[in-house]
Amino acid sequence: MTPGQLDATFAALADPTRRAILARLALGEASVNELVKPFAMSQPAVSKHLKVLERAGLISAAHEAQRRPRRLEARPLGEAARWLERYRQFWEARFQRLDALLDELQGRKPRRTRTKRQRGRR
Amino acid sequence: MTPGQLDATFAALADPTRRAILARLALGEASVNELVKPFAMSQPAVSKHLKVLERAGLISAAHEAQRRPRRLEARPLGEAARWLERYRQFWEARFQRLDALLDELQGRKPRRTRTKRQRGRR
Repeated sequence: MTPGQLDATFAALADPTRRAILARLALGEASVNELVKPFAMSQPAVSKHLKVLERAGLISAAHEAQRRPRRLEARPLGEAARWLERYRQFWEARFQRLDALLDELQGRKPRRTRTKRQRGRR
Repeated sequence: MTPGQLDATFAALADPTRRAILARLALGEASVNELVKPFAMSQPAVSKHLKVLERAGLISAAHEAQRRPRRLEARPLGEAARWLERYRQFWEARFQRLDALLDELQGRKPRRTRTKRQRGRR
């Protein structure tokens, strides 16, 4: 994982349309026409986003004549997630501080820890 | 988590200097002068990066007069990681395909699955 690849991955993810395209491709490959439909956007505008995603290696185009469906290439997303993972202790610590504060405000005895799943249910 | 926050987080992460600043702040808070030192970069250039990180909510500045040390604010990193997490099945599947291919090339019987830890050790 070169710094350049991480730059390209994070830059490609910094746009809601491009994230929505990835979410669509997570359901299965799709042609450019199929990708354009859900967006209130011209095909050239969507194609520009596809080019950014393709250059970052987040999608690829099949070599079928005409349709050339796009498909998700998840490896760079995994590398980006791995980079973020190093900071997990910091956001977890923050959630624990918020939990402690909430307990204090509600006059409860502070809990030690709480699982992610439990926190999600709140 | 608004789309705008994710945009800002990913855009802020799309630069090696800004990622290095976050890595430094993960070790503890630091003044601008301390943050400038390791970089072959002018203070205004580093300050510009700090502003991007601060606007994205990834760092904050303490209100101590003069020194105003910067500190890591990890919550948006956690939200970004959560977004990426939805794609985990895709990059894991890819690793499994690579494992299977490697087994095939080495003439071994395909394994069923492999833990992340084991894969990391290779």
